[in-house]
Amino acid sequence: MKNKSSENQINNADNNNQFRKIGVPLIDVVDSMEKLRALNPIELPWLADDIRKEIIKVVSQNGGHLGPSLGVVELTIALHYVFNTPDDKIIWDVGHQSYAHKILTGRYKQFKTLRKKGGLSGFTKRAESIFDPFGAGHSSTSISAGLGMASARDINAQEHNIICVIGDGSMSAGMAFEAMNNAGDMNSKLIVILNDNDMSISPPVGALSTHLSKIISSKQYMSIRNTASELVSLLPKALGNVAKRTESYARGLVTGGTLFEELGFFYVGPIDGHTFEDLIPVFENIRDNKKHKAFLIHVRTKKGHGYNPAEKSPTAFHGVYKFDIVTGELKNAKTEIPSCTQGFSKIINYLAQEDDKVVAITAAMPSGTGLAKFAENFPSRFFDVGIAEQHAVTFAAGMAVEGIKPFVAIYSSFLQRAYDQIVHDVVLQGLPVRFMIDRAGLVGEDGVTHHGLYDISMLANLHNVVIMAPSSYNEVLNMVKTAYSIDDRPSFVRYPKGCLPYVEPITSEFGQILKIGKARIIKNSLNTENTKADLAILSLGSRLFEAMKASEMLEKEGFSVSIVDARFAKPFDTEMVIKLAKTHKALITVEEGANGGFGAEIAQFLTDEALLDSGLKFRAIAIKDNFIHHATVSEQLAQAGLEAENIKNTAINMLKIERLNFVSNKSVNL
Amino acid sequence: MKNKSSENQINNADNNNQFRKIGVPLIDVVDSMEKLRALNPIELPWLADDIRKEIIKVVSQNGGHLGPSLGVVELTIALHYVFNTPDDKIIWDVGHQSYAHKILTGRYKQFKTLRKKGGLSGFTKRAESIFDPFGAGHSSTSISAGLGMASARDINAQEHNIICVIGDGSMSAGMAFEAMNNAGDMNSKLIVILNDNDMSISPPVGALSTHLSKIISSKQYMSIRNTASELVSLLPKALGNVAKRTESYARGLVTGGTLFEELGFFYVGPIDGHTFEDLIPVFENIRDNKKHKAFLIHVRTKKGHGYNPAEKSPTAFHGVYKFDIVTGELKNAKTEIPSCTQGFSKIINYLAQEDDKVVAITAAMPSGTGLAKFAENFPSRFFDVGIAEQHAVTFAAGMAVEGIKPFVAIYSSFLQRAYDQIVHDVVLQGLPVRFMIDRAGLVGEDGVTHHGLYDISMLANLHNVVIMAPSSYNEVLNMVKTAYSIDDRPSFVRYPKGCLPYVEPITSEFGQILKIGKARIIKNSLNTENTKADLAILSLGSRLFEAMKASEMLEKEGFSVSIVDARFAKPFDTEMVIKLAKTHKALITVEEGANGGFGAEIAQFLTDEALLDSGLKFRAIAIKDNFIHHATVSEQLAQAGLEAENIKNTAINMLKIERLNFVSNKSVNL
Repeated sequence: MKNKSSENQINNADNNNQFRKIGVPLIDVVDSMEKLRALNPIELPWLADDIRKEIIKVVSQNGGHLGPSLGVVELTIALHYVFNTPDDKIIWDVGHQSYAHKILTGRYKQFKTLRKKGGLSGFTKRAESIFDPFGAGHSSTSISAGLGMASARDINAQEHNIICVIGDGSMSAGMAFEAMNNAGDMNSKLIVILNDNDMSISPPVGALSTHLSKIISSKQYMSIRNTASELVSLLPKALGNVAKRTESYARGLVTGGTLFEELGFFYVGPIDGHTFEDLIPVFENIRDNKKHKAFLIHVRTKKGHGYNPAEKSPTAFHGVYKFDIVTGELKNAKTEIPSCTQGFSKIINYLAQEDDKVVAITAAMPSGTGLAKFAENFPSRFFDVGIAEQHAVTFAAGMAVEGIKPFVAIYSSFLQRAYDQIVHDVVLQGLPVRFMIDRAGLVGEDGVTHHGLYDISMLANLHNVVIMAPSSYNEVLNMVKTAYSIDDRPSFVRYPKGCLPYVEPITSEFGQILKIGKARIIKNSLNTENTKADLAILSLGSRLFEAMKASEMLEKEGFSVSIVDARFAKPFDTEMVIKLAKTHKALITVEEGANGGFGAEIAQFLTDEALLDSGLKFRAIAIKDNFIHHATVSEQLAQAGLEAENIKNTAINMLKIERLNFVSNKSVNL
Repeated sequence: MKNKSSENQINNADNNNQFRKIGVPLIDVVDSMEKLRALNPIELPWLADDIRKEIIKVVSQNGGHLGPSLGVVELTIALHYVFNTPDDKIIWDVGHQSYAHKILTGRYKQFKTLRKKGGLSGFTKRAESIFDPFGAGHSSTSISAGLGMASARDINAQEHNIICVIGDGSMSAGMAFEAMNNAGDMNSKLIVILNDNDMSISPPVGALSTHLSKIISSKQYMSIRNTASELVSLLPKALGNVAKRTESYARGLVTGGTLFEELGFFYVGPIDGHTFEDLIPVFENIRDNKKHKAFLIHVRTKKGHGYNPAEKSPTAFHGVYKFDIVTGELKNAKTEIPSCTQGFSKIINYLAQEDDKVVAITAAMPSGTGLAKFAENFPSRFFDVGIAEQHAVTFAAGMAVEGIKPFVAIYSSFLQRAYDQIVHDVVLQGLPVRFMIDRAGLVGEDGVTHHGLYDISMLANLHNVVIMAPSSYNEVLNMVKTAYSIDDRPSFVRYPKGCLPYVEPITSEFGQILKIGKARIIKNSLNTENTKADLAILSLGSRLFEAMKASEMLEKEGFSVSIVDARFAKPFDTEMVIKLAKTHKALITVEEGANGGFGAEIAQFLTDEALLDSGLKFRAIAIKDNFIHHATVSEQLAQAGLEAENIKNTAINMLKIERLNFVSNKSVNL
């Protein structure tokens, strides 16, 4: 198959497909690359239909990235049809559009387990299949990984193709530019497919361009082009440069690809990503081209293609929870309590109305971060910078310098992209940028790449910052308002996906400013000043409700338990910690984040202040060093050991020793 | 001055400068912007001469970034001459080229304190001057910051100019691209000056182009261009697009600026950055242009301009320690022990000779990271990806997938740029990428932006990684070799700038593989199994020598001290920690990094394992939450409390309480 041309097959195709005739869906028959490649090209649209139906069926139940996956069904089939996968390697940027790829590469039977615990991941994953050479989840990594694989291939003296498929949105990330800048300058064959589905890079230029791109990528054109280059190389250098540039600019003028040409890519496109007659010959041409080094094939697709509701509402159907296939009605996870994101949204809109210095910045996540309404209400103060977290943060720093009050809303795991900018541009300069860290904690079905586990450990060691974590919806309101009020240094509010289970009355609809660095006592179990209570639980953020449940269990077993809501990870309430340490036999911290965060801070403080030297027992409950894969959030919380039962067991283990000691001491005294 | 044109002044200039005549250097006279702007343009080259001499004089003594600063003397003067600073704001990318800027903006008298403790920073710094609107140190942040400031200006209804000056090297960072991509799409006036000094972006096209750029940027050209746009806007849309594109591409074809034009910038250049007659009229034109939004002025400069040795060896003179002005002879800091960087260099070259799968990757720091020799010896396995840390890491991950053995050498503080790539692309996939983290710890004169303080805390919570820190040159060799041998997961070796003071015999010239996760005992003070020694010092990495000095001091005071070299921050030697905890009354960890690193890990382990519950005292010595500004490394170590004296004092405080308790217990018994 590798070198055969499909051109003739398309033209001579027999309209009477054997499987269609006997009523067997192609998706059930095509269970290997050999069978796929044995199909007549005219059969491919039927296979696409089958795959599309399967994706719609499963995603309507399991949730997932519907729009992106429906948009690349034909592209996926064409790639596997033309390229010799898995020897040739396809790297799906982000990986959320890989559903058709999974179905075609031996995972059709498992596809119904998508995003379920123990089932298929919603992204590409090396452990899942040899057809997934590089896993993903975050955007814009594919060209870097692909270029690394291409360079490795060259060192290994191999000849396979490396194909990176990247969306136009992902192209806005600096990392993709860094990779293209490098790729264009290397002598390594690399194929980048730009999956352009929302016109953010260039306007459609229609059939003429599709036609041109086919001509441009044809062998004939390639060889003319090579001859021209050879001629050019014989000219005096200065003249040669002008001639070369003229050729590539002239092409750019017609096809709109000069940005990529400038970066050293051979640009082909745009071509229609839903038409096999366009995709296959272009892919074959590029596959068979040995001379040129870095190729950019510009493919135009439509998000949600083939499913009307998704085509009409591409944003809503980008990622879905569940939906009704027939009506297209989207269902949401049932919650009675408003989400943290909604809390942020409510307050930022209120603040912006009151104060025209308030602005909001998102890196391509206006709805996920709760800024859609703000964008509507205050368009001139809303900044969506694209998938560009690094820029987002320093852009905000620049605004803060001039007295503007920027709120930067980014998911915890994506904020890792901007760590240096936080340190270097915001913290070292003490600038009052307000970071709203959404999805801080376990995120459920999106799995291991999307958890927000490291924000506390990456931020808590920085000087002169405020880090807050709300325990209830009410606290979300208060902390967003508090961040607004902090105008002399950076502040961070970290809150999880969805809603916080601890419910309390709303202090103020507009949020109430909290005292910086002060915790609040939820339950005080000290009876007199002379006796120590058994246990204090110091909870940061989302786990307060579980801490309260644990304390009830413990009290049933006769232990006295105090509960404190830490509110601030930094500066934390040292006075409160000292008080707890001196008036309790044991202290436990709880947080929804990796080891090395809040609990580590408290451990260090306790040892620095010699508070453990006189017998206080201390344990930090945080997410242990491990990978937590996709499942529901509550399955993940159980796995992570962050539930009431875990807190209770930790406490009992600590306190039992205490009791035994007490008993043994007594017997000695007797 | 703001709106006056210098054109006539240049032509009518009087050659008899008053100050030259009376022998007063202009640099001594021009002590304000008013005086600078009152100069006749013909006097500016003389001022440039004076400034250049001052820079050479001070840097020859204090060290610093000579080449970059000499390259922009005329550019700096021209900017302040034309623009209304400090109301108009200049943002120097990286900030290492800002010496002339400092001299011109009220810091001439202090300039001799450059990079000294309490003196001027080697970079721009907000706290230092109102002429430094945004501090720097790391590269490629200026356009993001500038765009933020421009947006803020618009919201604040102000009209000043924002000028970002960025080198062509810095342009390779994704962050700069993210910012340009955003800037080109915004309705905000922003001026970006591309300081092109090494031809990495485009070849010089000489006088013609300079001429063209002057025409292009002239008001006449601008108004023709605007008229054309207005005409275009009257055409049917499709036709209008083509016409627009034709115009900008035609200009690009002549001037070589289409990459920037594609990103939405109005491109002007290249112009000669050492000729006031070219710089001033272009700056004036752009300054006075109110209509166009984002401008890119391409200025060609020569690194080290005006000082022969620096012009001839731009790499060597980029950043220098000290040098002889007359001979141009570079001096290096005196060391008898080879540096950590040299140790890495030695082993990587040896490994690459033995194993053709070994490759090395740097992000624009081949000599700083010790890879210059490798690049010479193994050019096909050496990858300098430009200032592009994010790409560097994922590129390495792609190589590791294919069985290549990548070593990525990046400074600790710059590795912060790639935190997400480490987590998402390397660690989550368990890929054997070897990270050589240079400059981990305090870095001296480069100051607060360049310390490597956060690598341990950002990495130690990640699953299934190996983190090593050498205590001696010998250990550098061993650890690089050990990283080479680790082929089933990511590994990191962190080592400081310069050399390690602890000297021991070389185990093997080619490095010896260490047992993963095992510490080594340097001194064991246990006499019998039944008594506890007073103190164990568990040192990670560079501070071992100080720990040894501290133990000598403590032993003179009668305390028994064990010393262990931790070697591994992860997985650390749990068996050893348990043993130390059970056989000593007190335990101290020491590391050259921020709080929340190794010491926090040990604290958490001790509490998790209930090892503190029976009275062991523990303290972690690390760099406290604070900013440590430029000074010598040893001044900084003292400030950070990482010297023998500090370790001794911490120990005595812990142990004194112990002794007092002992005494008081005894008296009770009597």
